[in-house]
Amino acid sequence: MDIIEKLPTVKRLMRQLQQVPFLASKNMYRVMSYFLKLDNERIDQLCRVLQDIKKDVSFCNRCFVWQETSLGCLFCDDSHRDQSQICVVESWQELLVIERTEGYRGLYHVLGGVISPLDGIGPSDLYIEQLINRITSGVSEVILAMNQTPEGEATAAFVARKLKGTAVKVSCLAKGVPIGSNLEFIDRLTVSKALADRKPF
Amino acid sequence: MDIIEKLPTVKRLMRQLQQVPFLASKNMYRVMSYFLKLDNERIDQLCRVLQDIKKDVSFCNRCFVWQETSLGCLFCDDSHRDQSQICVVESWQELLVIERTEGYRGLYHVLGGVISPLDGIGPSDLYIEQLINRITSGVSEVILAMNQTPEGEATAAFVARKLKGTAVKVSCLAKGVPIGSNLEFIDRLTVSKALADRKPF
Repeated sequence: MDIIEKLPTVKRLMRQLQQVPFLASKNMYRVMSYFLKLDNERIDQLCRVLQDIKKDVSFCNRCFVWQETSLGCLFCDDSHRDQSQICVVESWQELLVIERTEGYRGLYHVLGGVISPLDGIGPSDLYIEQLINRITSGVSEVILAMNQTPEGEATAAFVARKLKGTAVKVSCLAKGVPIGSNLEFIDRLTVSKALADRKPF
Repeated sequence: MDIIEKLPTVKRLMRQLQQVPFLASKNMYRVMSYFLKLDNERIDQLCRVLQDIKKDVSFCNRCFVWQETSLGCLFCDDSHRDQSQICVVESWQELLVIERTEGYRGLYHVLGGVISPLDGIGPSDLYIEQLINRITSGVSEVILAMNQTPEGEATAAFVARKLKGTAVKVSCLAKGVPIGSNLEFIDRLTVSKALADRKPF
């Protein structure tokens, strides 16, 4: 029997941490050691912020980006953003990546995941219907910025089909060789796509 | 400016999580999303266990293994364990690995780290003195089970030197090729060590 079984409070902590994604079991014990060693003040700080996020942070009910409820949506409520473009992303993480490029000034729409029948996630589990409902006369372009995974591409194809009836222009990210990369280490599919989509120098 | 800067509560959560080891920044946003999506009940559960570990979990002040304070030390207070052997480990994680082999029935001593001058960790920052003080007539063997890193080996050498004056037998883990491994992928040093330490078949 694992000695964790004989330490009920430590086991409860483990149960909680096991549910946190991206804590591989090898590192989990180190993370547990970290929490076991925290002093009272740090634990209180952590608990306070966990309680505060429930109170103060919410989804924008238009684009589904996290917002400080008292401040409103950073995108939808910002008149400096181009209200005619909507960039569709799987989740908040991808939005952060795009924001960091400082090359996009339009709005966003977070789908909340990708269509993945194996995981039991269908179109109705995502904010696709809500995206379609946002397409009014003011919107001229929807940029599909899903990840280049089979699920991401299938989701992009599904959303594109749904948008077909509307007057909106649907675009997607360029595919090709990453900047700074060495062709030798790029997969064949990417290279052949980059070759097919070649541009005048 | 990163949009996190404009979400003060989310930023506070990030600050707390950034201090947790083994949360690489790439995954940090996913972990944050996990916490942002937790319901009130789950957050209360998590906060409760964090508060409880401070109250109910402590170090054994003899071997420095975590214990449920009310239950006593799983090792020192267990008369079925062989009180004449002490296995010295860097931390709790290595102890768990050794316990899982079910091949060791003696006591432990957790050093709390390794000597690492670059990180400012000297012998006095570890529980080495406390180990020396545990060496009484009842103890016949100290097994050094430090990790096979430069710091681990230096720490083992330091502890072995400290124990030289005592009557105790000092041993260490066998070094060699891991079971199930392919010689082709083992480093030269390990192979040459395994060759030098070869045993009758």
